[in-house]
Amino acid sequence: MAIDPDAAIEVTAFKWVPPSAQGMVKDLRVRWALGEAGLDYRVRLIGLDRPEGYRADQPFDQVPCFSDGKVRIFESGAILQYIGEQSEALLPRDPQGKYRAIQWTYAALSSVEPSVQPRVLLDSIYAGEPWAEPIKPTLEQLSRLRLQQASDWLGDKDWLEGDRFTIGDLMMVTVLRIAARGKLLEPFPNLAAYVARGQVRPAFGQALEDQLATFREHEPQGEAA
Amino acid sequence: MAIDPDAAIEVTAFKWVPPSAQGMVKDLRVRWALGEAGLDYRVRLIGLDRPEGYRADQPFDQVPCFSDGKVRIFESGAILQYIGEQSEALLPRDPQGKYRAIQWTYAALSSVEPSVQPRVLLDSIYAGEPWAEPIKPTLEQLSRLRLQQASDWLGDKDWLEGDRFTIGDLMMVTVLRIAARGKLLEPFPNLAAYVARGQVRPAFGQALEDQLATFREHEPQGEAA
Repeated sequence: MAIDPDAAIEVTAFKWVPPSAQGMVKDLRVRWALGEAGLDYRVRLIGLDRPEGYRADQPFDQVPCFSDGKVRIFESGAILQYIGEQSEALLPRDPQGKYRAIQWTYAALSSVEPSVQPRVLLDSIYAGEPWAEPIKPTLEQLSRLRLQQASDWLGDKDWLEGDRFTIGDLMMVTVLRIAARGKLLEPFPNLAAYVARGQVRPAFGQALEDQLATFREHEPQGEAA
Repeated sequence: MAIDPDAAIEVTAFKWVPPSAQGMVKDLRVRWALGEAGLDYRVRLIGLDRPEGYRADQPFDQVPCFSDGKVRIFESGAILQYIGEQSEALLPRDPQGKYRAIQWTYAALSSVEPSVQPRVLLDSIYAGEPWAEPIKPTLEQLSRLRLQQASDWLGDKDWLEGDRFTIGDLMMVTVLRIAARGKLLEPFPNLAAYVARGQVRPAFGQALEDQLATFREHEPQGEAA
């Protein structure tokens, strides 16, 4: 669960991103899962301008990519599953437990994130657009509906399926952190507590620190931190 | 690969949806995969007002849900994987082939659909909104970027990973059908041909016909088809 330049597992990450994206870049999900699984990895850093040929590894020009000499894949959801297959701590072995965990990774990425992210962007990168205010009620309603449904499901459980943390929770916590950054979780204290429960896990803290340390190291010269 | 009221596999689907959604509801993905795998299934039809307690099965109030006596899951991505595990025709067995196929289901749902769907909705359910025209250039650019990247990846290959159709293609074709409905594929003839290649598969045709037959049967009285 440490960064080791000789590790078989390689993960791509950005050298540096603007402060608003720091701590949110998606290699965090993979670093966190590797930490939970106790697997060492090395990092291949790439610039925001991307190296020549990077789209052969990642057609959508994003991070992370993952390779370990056996598979070479992208998409954090697929990578979490692959790590989960090597660690029962992250992915139960019984079919129902396994597929419920997998299901929640898709739910986070496909049912929650696309409704929450646009609402958050209205207050950040799109704040100055002439359509930002007029569209806000529509995006607010979409975002609130999905968060309400997630909140209703979670209830007073610790994790989405009860007592056990899985890759489904890992993914959902990282998606709900987007909502938390946009201050969308205030009406949903159980979701805020769920995110906090994820974030106090030691593997999360290490993953976050490792991502941020890279950005500190590569802070562009002449710009304030 | 037929609907059989005594089958162990149950899939939920809507009794009826408005014409603009017909042929696009997500149980189509599962019906198609079951057809490719040669597995019989029964359908549990639900109304648009949802039966009491449905959110215990599907917290986000969507279709499809899937059960077979062994697992009870939702999210089409997870269901496709579960069906794929039972059918090498849909999901290769070698780790690289398997995880590349899984990766493409996430790419379709997480990297492509959230960029394409909002652009398509601008011309349909959001067409009358005051922000629809002002936001169009931004959503057009996002949508076109992702479609260009998907097109560049596909190149002149038949399927995303070459010669072999997998659950990754099944998912991507259903996502690109949304773009095709919104006439967004005209600049990308290789993506249009890819969608056509998916849609001529017999299991796709059967799945589509089975979804549409239900809607014809439950057409609301007093409304024209």
